[in-house]
Amino acid sequence: MNMLELIEKKRDGMPLSSEEIGFFVDGVTKKTIPDYQISAFLMAVLWRGMTDEETKELTLAMARSGEICDLSDIPGVKVDKHSTGGVGDKVTPILLPIVSSFGVPCVKLSGRGLGFTGGTIDKFESIEGFITSVEPSQFREKINKCGMLLGGQTEGLAPCDKYLYALRDVTGTVPSIPLIASSIMSKKIAGGSDAIVLDITCGSGAFMKDKESAEALARQMLAIGKLAGKPVSCVLTSMEQPLGNAVGNILEMQEVMETLAGNGREDVKTVVLTMAAEMLKHTPYGEKLDTETLIAQCGEKLSNGEALAKFQELILSQGGMLDSTGHPVFVDEPFEVMTVFADSDGYVERCDALSVGEASCLLGAGRMQKTDVIDMGAGIKLHKKVGDMVSRGEPLYSLYTGTKDTVSEERIDEALQKMESAYKIGSLPVAKIPEIMGVIS
Amino acid sequence: MNMLELIEKKRDGMPLSSEEIGFFVDGVTKKTIPDYQISAFLMAVLWRGMTDEETKELTLAMARSGEICDLSDIPGVKVDKHSTGGVGDKVTPILLPIVSSFGVPCVKLSGRGLGFTGGTIDKFESIEGFITSVEPSQFREKINKCGMLLGGQTEGLAPCDKYLYALRDVTGTVPSIPLIASSIMSKKIAGGSDAIVLDITCGSGAFMKDKESAEALARQMLAIGKLAGKPVSCVLTSMEQPLGNAVGNILEMQEVMETLAGNGREDVKTVVLTMAAEMLKHTPYGEKLDTETLIAQCGEKLSNGEALAKFQELILSQGGMLDSTGHPVFVDEPFEVMTVFADSDGYVERCDALSVGEASCLLGAGRMQKTDVIDMGAGIKLHKKVGDMVSRGEPLYSLYTGTKDTVSEERIDEALQKMESAYKIGSLPVAKIPEIMGVIS
Repeated sequence: MNMLELIEKKRDGMPLSSEEIGFFVDGVTKKTIPDYQISAFLMAVLWRGMTDEETKELTLAMARSGEICDLSDIPGVKVDKHSTGGVGDKVTPILLPIVSSFGVPCVKLSGRGLGFTGGTIDKFESIEGFITSVEPSQFREKINKCGMLLGGQTEGLAPCDKYLYALRDVTGTVPSIPLIASSIMSKKIAGGSDAIVLDITCGSGAFMKDKESAEALARQMLAIGKLAGKPVSCVLTSMEQPLGNAVGNILEMQEVMETLAGNGREDVKTVVLTMAAEMLKHTPYGEKLDTETLIAQCGEKLSNGEALAKFQELILSQGGMLDSTGHPVFVDEPFEVMTVFADSDGYVERCDALSVGEASCLLGAGRMQKTDVIDMGAGIKLHKKVGDMVSRGEPLYSLYTGTKDTVSEERIDEALQKMESAYKIGSLPVAKIPEIMGVIS
Repeated sequence: MNMLELIEKKRDGMPLSSEEIGFFVDGVTKKTIPDYQISAFLMAVLWRGMTDEETKELTLAMARSGEICDLSDIPGVKVDKHSTGGVGDKVTPILLPIVSSFGVPCVKLSGRGLGFTGGTIDKFESIEGFITSVEPSQFREKINKCGMLLGGQTEGLAPCDKYLYALRDVTGTVPSIPLIASSIMSKKIAGGSDAIVLDITCGSGAFMKDKESAEALARQMLAIGKLAGKPVSCVLTSMEQPLGNAVGNILEMQEVMETLAGNGREDVKTVVLTMAAEMLKHTPYGEKLDTETLIAQCGEKLSNGEALAKFQELILSQGGMLDSTGHPVFVDEPFEVMTVFADSDGYVERCDALSVGEASCLLGAGRMQKTDVIDMGAGIKLHKKVGDMVSRGEPLYSLYTGTKDTVSEERIDEALQKMESAYKIGSLPVAKIPEIMGVIS
């Protein structure tokens, strides 16, 4: 068996055997296959696709390419959650405390942000003292402490996927459904949980730009889960506009606190509660209850303060600081650079997620390159969203930077231009965008 | 402009601009684009294709990536010839002396063989003393001497193509018509000739396996030639079985001598004379004559000994040795290892070019890797070809090695097996395979 034969086979549209996929993953992991052959192969996969069987084999082989977390000594059904990424996506920090307050152990391994999408790890690191580098050996202790754990992906988890992902990023081979699906699922499977709930974002601020591709990705994830023996459910959510009203690390964590205190925006709550209900359905507690009941019960955890208490427990468990009022102490505070006001009456027709994400990134809230340092206080606050009525002179959005780092005037100008292109105000009433586009399980 | 954008554009099926193609060729030549991006791009080109305009831009940019031969101080119309490669293809050494004997200057830059197809340079180097490394500065002197020149491709000619070709070879990106066409045409254009005649081989022993792809390649070559201002004509020839009866370097040169002495096989003569007529049509001498007349006149050059005399002049001009009878002195002599006889009466249904080429390669006549040393005496002689009647006990083919190098018993066994699979004898009469499948100009 040699790599050239595998490239030619895939190029000619033929499916690869389990041995062939194993050979590929092994060669990537051990660095015996040169990058130029890997990238030609990845482009051939993007072109020809992969069968469900091939995608499952790739996923499992990538999961086995490094250590596999063994969570079997933690009692209960461990349900993992993953989002395909979005702008203003603060679901995890609200969702985990809710699910945990039902006594379900939550182990969530998250990534850092790159480009316009934010990363959960970065958001938690905006809290003074919070430590995300937790070794698998400490998992049990943390779980025993507060029932939850939030960690960065360890080096040893699915190293093959890590290598492939970096190469895909620079060779135009990211938007392949089998490659995206196997990348996500290999990490989830190596993470050791029993069931997986996926938030498949869809729209301008997501990988999947339309409902068809989002559904295709969801079906692929379900197929892998089925073949790998891990139940999967997918919630398709809209990412045409950012989720909630805050974009940027500290700004989003402030919105998390508002939501946990029962004062959150409806769009954030809808996504969080739908995801929470899906996660509970995989547990003995939730498996006999219907979605409406579960959503209502989860909503109660927000209004009765239980989720907030759990969130505070999580912060303390991982070394984070709370002030005397129980509010997280942040490493910086957002500084308002300017607020833009509506120059006419009307209705918000568009608030483009991609443009807002890029603007926030320009202000310092995200990384353009892996080595960039994030300005935790930077970001955008949206005062109006799609469907909202605006009057001339009302605030539309505000730009923020941190107080420690400085961002150039040019960058702020660029961010402002992005924001101007993000918004469209029309004269006719516009319907709100439904957050949930479907649940597939 | 960056390479990732170019990959994504091509991946998404959009044509690249002249500037973008220039950026790519420049980056490959200066080695500023990493191999993994080049190979992903090549696979995207194989997938999405290229427009005629893109292919022309790629061809011209590759031709300009190194030195361009200036043949303008050699009087007359310089016509170049190229074959897409085949088994037993000894057209050039017969064709050049014929065309040259009409007073047309012939500069032919040839390649070495790799894999089952032979290289013209290797064949000439089987003659004692023959020197193929001729620098462009010596071209005029050689042409003045005998009207012909046969040289190896110099290092400086189309270096971008050289680099891309090596990468295509190991990344499964060879069979792309725009890439094949631009690779050939860039070298021909850098070679400096005024017009180009191409022998597009088609069948089991060629790159192009069927007539449709051969025609598509021919049309692509014509389109490049038209856009680049160099007249091109293409002769489509069959490569289902080897051309002539000899395969291997000295064996083929012996067949060349027989053909020049007027005793050649009809199939070899047909291809040579058709190509010669096409070349003459691009010159003032031939442009007013019809194909039949030109073929007849070229045939005369074979029967009256003029072409043979020209061939001998070429050998002497480049340092090669002739014996007292005017026959080339070879570096070795073929040693007959065995002859295989027909075990039943019948008709040859198949004599598969690819299998014969591979068998010859196994005996030492070709290179499996670029660094392999060729056994000049090795090869195969075919005593029967498709359509021939055979009687039980008649010789079918003979295997040869050189006298200097030794090839293992295992290799000879393997070659024998290849030859056994190459031949098929049936009981019913079979039509001969027409050599010429069409002429496109």
